[in-house]
Amino acid sequence: MPRYAYVNGRYLPHEEATVHVEDRGFQFADGVYEVVTIIDGHLADEQGHLARLDRSLRELAIAWPVKPPVLRLIMRELIRRNRLRNGTIYLQVTRGAAPRDFAFPKAPAGTLVLTTRRVSRFGAPKQLDEGVGVITIPDIRWARRDIKSVALLPQVLGKQRAVEAGAFEAWQVDPDGTVTEGCSSNAWIITGDGMLVTRAPSNRILSGITRQSLIRLAAENGIAFEERSFTVDEAKRAREAFVSSASTFVMPVTRIDGTPVGDGRPGPVGRKLRQAYIQYAQQGPSVR
Amino acid sequence: MPRYAYVNGRYLPHEEATVHVEDRGFQFADGVYEVVTIIDGHLADEQGHLARLDRSLRELAIAWPVKPPVLRLIMRELIRRNRLRNGTIYLQVTRGAAPRDFAFPKAPAGTLVLTTRRVSRFGAPKQLDEGVGVITIPDIRWARRDIKSVALLPQVLGKQRAVEAGAFEAWQVDPDGTVTEGCSSNAWIITGDGMLVTRAPSNRILSGITRQSLIRLAAENGIAFEERSFTVDEAKRAREAFVSSASTFVMPVTRIDGTPVGDGRPGPVGRKLRQAYIQYAQQGPSVR
Repeated sequence: MPRYAYVNGRYLPHEEATVHVEDRGFQFADGVYEVVTIIDGHLADEQGHLARLDRSLRELAIAWPVKPPVLRLIMRELIRRNRLRNGTIYLQVTRGAAPRDFAFPKAPAGTLVLTTRRVSRFGAPKQLDEGVGVITIPDIRWARRDIKSVALLPQVLGKQRAVEAGAFEAWQVDPDGTVTEGCSSNAWIITGDGMLVTRAPSNRILSGITRQSLIRLAAENGIAFEERSFTVDEAKRAREAFVSSASTFVMPVTRIDGTPVGDGRPGPVGRKLRQAYIQYAQQGPSVR
Repeated sequence: MPRYAYVNGRYLPHEEATVHVEDRGFQFADGVYEVVTIIDGHLADEQGHLARLDRSLRELAIAWPVKPPVLRLIMRELIRRNRLRNGTIYLQVTRGAAPRDFAFPKAPAGTLVLTTRRVSRFGAPKQLDEGVGVITIPDIRWARRDIKSVALLPQVLGKQRAVEAGAFEAWQVDPDGTVTEGCSSNAWIITGDGMLVTRAPSNRILSGITRQSLIRLAAENGIAFEERSFTVDEAKRAREAFVSSASTFVMPVTRIDGTPVGDGRPGPVGRKLRQAYIQYAQQGPSVR
């Protein structure tokens, strides 16, 4: 079965899906993106992701390339064509192709690209059983981390450092010693007295959609929660830690810079939230 | 006459020059670029630009997509095919197309794109006669501004602010009040006592190739020069100011946030350096 991608009005075989070399996404990172998970044929947090896409586009004054209901239809059509039951759908919107010039083009065309990826499982069993390691690195990103732009080079370099260190993720740390977030995930700890903690949204982090749902699910499950910054030292002394993202949901973190977190095993709060999130995601809009 | 672009081994009509939607340049800003000017059939500062390209690639651990002498041949062939006597050649190298994942691909393919643009003149006569205005904005970029990456979104937003304010460029200002550089140019002043000043290279600015040549030309022309930071206030009190870049050479700045610089007219030091640079550039490698 061929795999399709969507580019500016056309469903194309994935390998033929291209954009012009003067697309502003390619030359200027002048675009934004979202990743939405499909689990058992249901879209996880679709509404949240499209709301954030809307916000990112507004912040950059990029017009919606199609109306939101049309985008929803395109997502469903691509998922249907690719017979995707479990995987991710990647949406990217750029200001479009135009003769190269830093300032916005007078009549931006806009580019809309969608691709899908099949996954057999959301997180490897070994990672979920044993937890993963994170390293900590200086947060060298720009001042508008709240915009989900494709200017991801710092995160690429950070994730590569993690991989080279044998870790799953790199937690980025601001000059004041507080953890901002992972390169493609939000960072969470559970303190010694059982408080679930993650950093408050600001322009220092991306406000994760999975993160938002987890905060709501924590409340529904009676888990005490505090939205505040924490340092690397506090994280190393935590009872439990995890990262959250659209494609990994909740992934237990059992080592920070080599230091075991708690007893060095995934903890019950992360496990409970992961189960709660999966249950919630499976109730998302069906794409069949 | 058709206009050609070069993409990964092929010379293509410009409008057919594309890259895959999973090119890391498009999805991650995981790439670097250079712009080289062709003036009267001569390449300006080619060696400097290719040396900086080499440095940028090393910093990001991206392999040269072709050997440097081959790139020189491709540049010449594209210029020849496009019959370019005056204009710019844009080179972009990315880590290539690969299934989307933040960390580096195991076997990165690498992407090499070249495009050209014809220009009738380097700077409009009115701008050169009257000078241009700049605005000042906070520098919100990441910590590795020394790498000439395509993660240019902050510069795009800054340049757009300049355009909306009726200015030519936006000078980015660090939290300590010092000017770092323009969004696509370096910033220079000539102080009341005739000292030419521009900021020292560091990871706070891109080390401009035109900038480097101007420093050498200043020495050759007996212009006193100091490499140091300056504040917006000092710039407003300067006798003269200008910006430098590969495509504008030296462009006089006569208004900073609306405040006239010196007598509000382009000054002799900038004019002399512009003439010297053009003369130098015209002695670069011939592409005929």
